Amino acid sequence: MTRSSDDPSPQSLSPQHPRPPRRRPGGRSASVRRRVLDATVAQLVEHGFDALSIDAVAERSGVHRTTVYRRWRDVGGLLADVLHAATRDDWRPPDTGSLEGDLVALNRELYTALTADPPITTALIAASFRSPHAADALTAFWTDRYARCAVIVTRAMDRGEIPARTDPHRLLVAATAPLYFEVVLRRTPAPRRLADWSARQAAVAAQAGAFVR
Amino acid sequence: MTRSSDDPSPQSLSPQHPRPPRRRPGGRSASVRRRVLDATVAQLVEHGFDALSIDAVAERSGVHRTTVYRRWRDVGGLLADVLHAATRDDWRPPDTGSLEGDLVALNRELYTALTADPPITTALIAASFRSPHAADALTAFWTDRYARCAVIVTRAMDRGEIPARTDPHRLLVAATAPLYFEVVLRRTPAPRRLADWSARQAAVAAQAGAFVR
Repeated sequence: MTRSSDDPSPQSLSPQHPRPPRRRPGGRSASVRRRVLDATVAQLVEHGFDALSIDAVAERSGVHRTTVYRRWRDVGGLLADVLHAATRDDWRPPDTGSLEGDLVALNRELYTALTADPPITTALIAASFRSPHAADALTAFWTDRYARCAVIVTRAMDRGEIPARTDPHRLLVAATAPLYFEVVLRRTPAPRRLADWSARQAAVAAQAGAFVR
Repeated sequence: MTRSSDDPSPQSLSPQHPRPPRRRPGGRSASVRRRVLDATVAQLVEHGFDALSIDAVAERSGVHRTTVYRRWRDVGGLLADVLHAATRDDWRPPDTGSLEGDLVALNRELYTALTADPPITTALIAASFRSPHAADALTAFWTDRYARCAVIVTRAMDRGEIPARTDPHRLLVAATAPLYFEVVLRRTPAPRRLADWSARQAAVAAQAGAFVR
């Protein structure tokens, strides 16, 4: 699957490693942002939302609290920027040559992110229930990710694997939603095979025309 | 669909109206429980998790705070009992005569619950990210509900609509999870048709054998 060579971590459909690229124009400003966002995620994962504050992030990052306050304003601003940074990365969906292969690869990335330790993804989702600013940013993150993955579906239509006018978003949500439900909401120890099962059932339904607009 | 005649509200796969039955053995004790759990839900929905306390629930319910404290101990105990009460109700899944009909009816109930105003379901799910006690109770609630719904799948197998050895839980999660993801997590204004679409794609995949163990 396609992935930038200097980032070995799964990005997937969840904000697993939501940080700006290592090298980007901006120099010192980019480095400050990176340190502050890394500190935000680390503080959230280790101590929870209630321990997240401008002061705690300033101390942890070594960036002056006035700088943090001026640029991010509050905890909602910090979390929103964590998600914006993830949205702007160069992640591309897998390209294995078949619809089922792409969905399986995608779901395995997602499974890894949702069950990772430290549980960055779950912590960010939990935080979205505390901060409207973070909730909006998470909505935007997922909207962007599902839009990027639409190419999986258009390639499958081009190959004639599934009917024309299949709705990419509905198909992709059908493939991935069971993982979010079982792991994040019902909080069960979902088997890794759930990733493959969910991918396959969505591919089968797509071939039968279940997502035609 | 089957539903107890004195409760016109949708119960569904989400804890929409999580209260004990109106008439149950126990008399005064049951009435106290009912008032306390109703006050817990009302306080949560109107003022959020942070305003939920033994004192607030005692005042709102008119039940003495010592009684509330002795029986429920803390906010986690109150929320867990709200969900336990919902688990023990007499809700039964729809029985329309076909797999797709049952799943569509189930998903319409779920959609109604997830988009209801006041947003009881969403508030309870959000609270599960704050209280481990509530999270455990929510897991138990869903596990119970999906087990009750397994009859939808066994009836379809008995009718020969889908292959024998279809896994009821996987099929039911595939049908319902897109609603939870879109409404609760991605927080998009999902169209009501999503309930029908999700039900149909799961039925199509089931007919093609996608959930065979």
